Amino acid sequence: MLIQRVEDTLVCTTRHEGLGHMHLRIVRDAKGSLSVAVDPVGAHKGNWVFTVSGSAARYAAQNFEILTDLTICGIIDHWDEAEGPGKN
Amino acid sequence: MLIQRVEDTLVCTTRHEGLGHMHLRIVRDAKGSLSVAVDPVGAHKGNWVFTVSGSAARYAAQNFEILTDLTICGIIDHWDEAEGPGKN
Amino acid sequence: MLIQRVEDTLVCTTRHEGLGHMHLRIVRDAKGSLSVAVDPVGAHKGNWVFTVSGSAARYAAQNFEILTDLTICGIIDHWDEAEGPGKN
Amino acid sequence: MLIQRVEDTLVCTTRHEGLGHMHLRIVRDAKGSLSVAVDPVGAHKGNWVFTVSGSAARYAAQNFEILTDLTICGIIDHWDEAEGPGKN
Amino acid sequence: MLIQRVEDTLVCTTRHEGLGHMHLRIVRDAKGSLSVAVDPVGAHKGNWVFTVSGSAARYAAQNFEILTDLTICGIIDHWDEAEGPGKN
Repeated sequence: MLIQRVEDTLVCTTRHEGLGHMHLRIVRDAKGSLSVAVDPVGAHKGNWVFTVSGSAARYAAQNFEILTDLTICGIIDHWDEAEGPGKN
Repeated sequence: MLIQRVEDTLVCTTRHEGLGHMHLRIVRDAKGSLSVAVDPVGAHKGNWVFTVSGSAARYAAQNFEILTDLTICGIIDHWDEAEGPGKN
Repeated sequence: MLIQRVEDTLVCTTRHEGLGHMHLRIVRDAKGSLSVAVDPVGAHKGNWVFTVSGSAARYAAQNFEILTDLTICGIIDHWDEAEGPGKN
Repeated sequence: MLIQRVEDTLVCTTRHEGLGHMHLRIVRDAKGSLSVAVDPVGAHKGNWVFTVSGSAARYAAQNFEILTDLTICGIIDHWDEAEGPGKN
Repeated sequence: MLIQRVEDTLVCTTRHEGLGHMHLRIVRDAKGSLSVAVDPVGAHKGNWVFTVSGSAARYAAQNFEILTDLTICGIIDHWDEAEGPGKN
């Protein structure tokens, strides 16, 4: 799974019906690359999260046929961008 | 999912019959790399889209046996290449 | 899907029987990285092709149990390495 | 499979119920990139491990529906970061 | 599939039982990155091989539930690291 930070919510008026009403978040990884993830856990802007990719992302979206390859699985309690996990 | 921009339509006279009549778009990511995506949503040249990869791309192409590993899922309403999502 | 150019045919006397008699091509991407792809469409050295990866590559090889993760799906009609698609 | 080193345990109070009680480890690869892996073998901080990705990660987690794309499969007996495998 | 060279055999006393008695090889790609592959063809140190990744790696390991995402499929007859395929 990848460690990424929620940047914003993605707005798409024209989108595939297979996405249903899933929330889409723009997430940024440590190298600055942006991706789009489905969010079933309710993450907020600025949260550090970890995301699952591949076919597991569909299980994580609670419907194996949902059109996703990246899904947020958890919000990390403590994360320091420079040092990694904080003092837990 | 990845954020990419539609560059053009791909023309292939010799192609695998398993692709049927699907439209193929050339898409470019933030680093300039080009890929080819199946397009079931009707994106145009210059549109910023997000694409799904892996086995989910086949679900998104509306036929699990379609020969694709990258499918356009939605057209992003506002996108600024330098700043990411615009003021929604 | 990726855009790659056929460099050569790969010769392997010792190979997994699960590959059957499939033709194997060495393909090069825009960054110069080499990969090996199964070729069901009959591409020639120098052709620009697009290839499908992941589990879709097995469908494209016409046998879901074929041992491939990269299969050539089509030969691109016009491609200019520096400029992308030519004037179609 | 990838060769990575266990950095720490990941703590997430808000996490997807599909992860059950699996231990999550932060692992670092040779280039310094961090990922999160499910750990069914009981690795400790500082161990060099090898991890399996993709759908095999779900088999390795002992439950095909577990929400993982990276699972620790073994602890490497001898590993030298600069030289690779030690004198076995 | 990827073109890689066998560096060594990987020794792991603590490993997932799902790996059975499969031989594990450390392989290096053209950029110097190391990975671990299951070897059903009997490759030796120094051999140039091609490897299959993803779910096809499990088929190649002769058991779909084997815990692998990278499996050696063939030994390349002629390979020159600088020039690619030799004069076949």
